[in-house]
Amino acid sequence: MANDTILLDHGSGGKVSHALTRDLLLPVFGNPILNRLDDGAVLDIDAGRLAFSTDTYVVDPIFFPGGNIGDLAINGTVNDLAMCGAEPLYLSVGLILEEGLALGDLKKIVAAMGAAATKADVKIVTGDTKVVPKGAADKIFINTSGVGRIPEGIDVGCDQARSRDVVIISGTLADHGATVLTQREGLTFDAQVASDSAALNHMVRQILNICPQVSVLRDPTRGGVGTALNEIAGQSGVGIKLFEDKIPVKPEVSGICELLGLDPLYVANEGKLLALVPAAQAENVLAAITANEYGRDAAIIGEVTADTPGKVFMQTRIGGSRIVDMLTGEQLPRIC
Amino acid sequence: MANDTILLDHGSGGKVSHALTRDLLLPVFGNPILNRLDDGAVLDIDAGRLAFSTDTYVVDPIFFPGGNIGDLAINGTVNDLAMCGAEPLYLSVGLILEEGLALGDLKKIVAAMGAAATKADVKIVTGDTKVVPKGAADKIFINTSGVGRIPEGIDVGCDQARSRDVVIISGTLADHGATVLTQREGLTFDAQVASDSAALNHMVRQILNICPQVSVLRDPTRGGVGTALNEIAGQSGVGIKLFEDKIPVKPEVSGICELLGLDPLYVANEGKLLALVPAAQAENVLAAITANEYGRDAAIIGEVTADTPGKVFMQTRIGGSRIVDMLTGEQLPRIC
Repeated sequence: MANDTILLDHGSGGKVSHALTRDLLLPVFGNPILNRLDDGAVLDIDAGRLAFSTDTYVVDPIFFPGGNIGDLAINGTVNDLAMCGAEPLYLSVGLILEEGLALGDLKKIVAAMGAAATKADVKIVTGDTKVVPKGAADKIFINTSGVGRIPEGIDVGCDQARSRDVVIISGTLADHGATVLTQREGLTFDAQVASDSAALNHMVRQILNICPQVSVLRDPTRGGVGTALNEIAGQSGVGIKLFEDKIPVKPEVSGICELLGLDPLYVANEGKLLALVPAAQAENVLAAITANEYGRDAAIIGEVTADTPGKVFMQTRIGGSRIVDMLTGEQLPRIC
Repeated sequence: MANDTILLDHGSGGKVSHALTRDLLLPVFGNPILNRLDDGAVLDIDAGRLAFSTDTYVVDPIFFPGGNIGDLAINGTVNDLAMCGAEPLYLSVGLILEEGLALGDLKKIVAAMGAAATKADVKIVTGDTKVVPKGAADKIFINTSGVGRIPEGIDVGCDQARSRDVVIISGTLADHGATVLTQREGLTFDAQVASDSAALNHMVRQILNICPQVSVLRDPTRGGVGTALNEIAGQSGVGIKLFEDKIPVKPEVSGICELLGLDPLYVANEGKLLALVPAAQAENVLAAITANEYGRDAAIIGEVTADTPGKVFMQTRIGGSRIVDMLTGEQLPRIC
């Protein structure tokens, strides 16, 4: 096999594995903690509450407008930590590489991971690389896990929604899912769409500075806003009412969804958050979100109600009301 | 596809995904932290040093004498944390499932993970499940990441070996690698071999209780004892001398290695550790290890020297000396 592709030997644990780590990963990810290359990283931390999260990324294709599997994997786990109210600090990276993967592709992905980690202000402190024979995986899968510190006094969670909370979305729906799907299917449209993949931890800090009483933070990835809100309604034992005419969707994304028979409510987002906050704070929080580079299209899209616990309803444009159920049936495999 | 296999829909993030988590994973892994099912786990911790580690498991075959990919994935990350001198506390589990995987196989694997976590006294607190279409992965890959607390006064690391330290191995070499390879190749021998997959955190605690001054703890997995000792020699800037006649290898494993052209020094172990300790403490530490259920065949196999920094030498049975290099060339892909 050519010298510019991944070989089984890159996963042997021997000399070639070490060279890959030293020459390709450390120059991008390196920091004093990672550089020790022990079996695990040693972190100095203060007492308190720590958030710990994991996610595996299997997106197909691995490169798409707006990002690639690398920055997606960093941003996704940064966001999962941020949604716990935590300041993300440290990430691990576990790579599964298919024999024959182009080294040039791996370098691009690793570079995107490094840039995303820098932008989110997190350190990659430990990692692992496995190589499987050609055909035993599809190019590259990435697991990232992370730990972060939850500031004193913050208690957000999907079981914390309260009646009269307001539902805010930080921007337009379905950009990521619509983009990946059009790429995968080889569809071309005049309209340019791009993934919204972004780290939201700085936005979360701005929200919590303004309003430490936030009830729920949630990034509506797989399953989309519809599924995320159902989970929140179920875990908190509340009802949620959405206003269809307030839900922001880009016209081009809306068009793609219509063409493909997808409901944007169930399509994955990778750089958006739902914030459920007390009504009295809603405008302040909305202002904080719209001031952030990733929150310009934020909107108040609904409210929490005491009736119909566990259910999500949509008040439609024409004044009717329909139930918004959890996603059933496969919609988009390998979307993240 | 049959009802008793994994469907793409199990990874959709919707209703079927939730049912898989609720009906198959939570009954085995459940605990108050995991049961919240938020994007991440929230952990209460004391100030101090935390170990953080990740590993991805792609072993082929997924079932083998002595274990399966599930307990291997728990034990492996527990061991990586323990080798940092930490008490492993919390694990994450990231599953990549191939469409069509038998649910019965997944249940067996999950049960083994639950049992291994209980035995190691660690909690699974957060997780993620992805499903990829048939052919895009090989049955199941598992990432586990973990965090653990490093007790005050413990400072072990591959850069801490000192001249006159003694090298202890906690048992026989190459059991795991030899077992997996014979299974994969469909070889049958009269001799029964089994993986040594085991969690070593309780053994590590016993070692550190006796000898908090331990220099290095290391589990010689991929690349085996030969590669691990080369890493230690390199990072600590010391030489290491091994005594060939002291290295414990089961006769049946030795026979398999000979037949397959493998050197047991480079074959993976999954339930063994190397401890480098000051010579004055060596007998005490050896006694602590042999008292542990996984340490009965422990032996002193070498010593650290000030000369030949970065190199590992073997004093052979017949009195000669040969260099033990790091593993070069692929030996055993998908061994863990």
